[in-house]
Amino acid sequence: MTITITAFERSPDRGRGLARDMRVRWALEEVGEPYEVRLVSFKAMKEPAHLTLHPFGQIPTYEDGDLALFESGAIVFHIAERHAGLLPADANARARAVAWMFAALNTVEPSIFERSLATILERDEPWYEQRLRRLEDSIRKRLGGLSARLGDADWLDGAFSAGDLLMVTVLRRAQGAGLLEDYPNLAAYVARGEARPAYKRAFAAQLAVFTAASGD
Amino acid sequence: MTITITAFERSPDRGRGLARDMRVRWALEEVGEPYEVRLVSFKAMKEPAHLTLHPFGQIPTYEDGDLALFESGAIVFHIAERHAGLLPADANARARAVAWMFAALNTVEPSIFERSLATILERDEPWYEQRLRRLEDSIRKRLGGLSARLGDADWLDGAFSAGDLLMVTVLRRAQGAGLLEDYPNLAAYVARGEARPAYKRAFAAQLAVFTAASGD
Repeated sequence: MTITITAFERSPDRGRGLARDMRVRWALEEVGEPYEVRLVSFKAMKEPAHLTLHPFGQIPTYEDGDLALFESGAIVFHIAERHAGLLPADANARARAVAWMFAALNTVEPSIFERSLATILERDEPWYEQRLRRLEDSIRKRLGGLSARLGDADWLDGAFSAGDLLMVTVLRRAQGAGLLEDYPNLAAYVARGEARPAYKRAFAAQLAVFTAASGD
Repeated sequence: MTITITAFERSPDRGRGLARDMRVRWALEEVGEPYEVRLVSFKAMKEPAHLTLHPFGQIPTYEDGDLALFESGAIVFHIAERHAGLLPADANARARAVAWMFAALNTVEPSIFERSLATILERDEPWYEQRLRRLEDSIRKRLGGLSARLGDADWLDGAFSAGDLLMVTVLRRAQGAGLLEDYPNLAAYVARGEARPAYKRAFAAQLAVFTAASGD
């Protein structure tokens, strides 16, 4: 049975690997599992067929035989649990890797994602600068904590794990805004993630979708 | 070895069960595991001893022998994985319960939590009304999707799971704002969670901390 995931027909990030299918593609590439991609339009995402797969009308989804999943974090965890390479074998180390998965998505991502949205939706508001400053303060708090914990290690807790995979995808959204760049060890950490062969294959695959849709 | 968790010495929610230790207490009560609580002040949360346990200087943390964890989602998952009662035995159903755990924390919680913060921190800002409206629109989108999926079922996917536990704690923060109340099946779902004996024991325990600290 082939795994099928869904991704944006036309990703709003223009193929920069910020859409959440990137996480799932990367995880599948890390464990060497082939997959197919079904592209969905913004319209189709809100229609009953897709809502059956994803109650919130988003991407990615994951289908493998009679299992259908949504939520990139849960899909990455499912892949990590069934293959070697994304979670340590030692029980305590595994629990800590899962803690980093939740930390990436529940503690680090929200303010970074909010900022990203605000730069699109609130750019013309009179209070834009002030709001941005507040968001960036809270992003810096998180990045400061993360930077202190990472120190000069390569990955967050021993070997590369699904926790690092998610954290790198979350931090990429803070690139280029003068935020990540203030924490050289975090910038280097993201670069280490992006240098992994599996990351590169996943990135190329999602970029190819955008390039094809743009008719280039 | 006794499990030790951390909680606020004085919870900003005044014992209403909205602090994230509630999730861990509830999970431990569901599986019948005793635990001790170490209370931490806001000052102590940002000091080195606590930062060793929690890189972002928050509560709750979880210590059991030589394992130290942070992130309420990860702690609840760890408890659920080691005891019966919070995750289904069937592999596919278990993966779907994990999807609901991530959905609660990464898809449903952010806008609800942001709104909660905004009502405290941004009340006097020029953008407050507009921002509140925008946040409530996005909360309603999530609640609408969740309500449609839940329908007239008791729980999100078969039996009560760690996914329901987290989702109920997330939705409680939308109570009393005229948001949750617009979705009667969600309001009833939260009430079902709150009626569980394990929930009640956990709630009483966290309220007792606040009451004692207030000198009542």
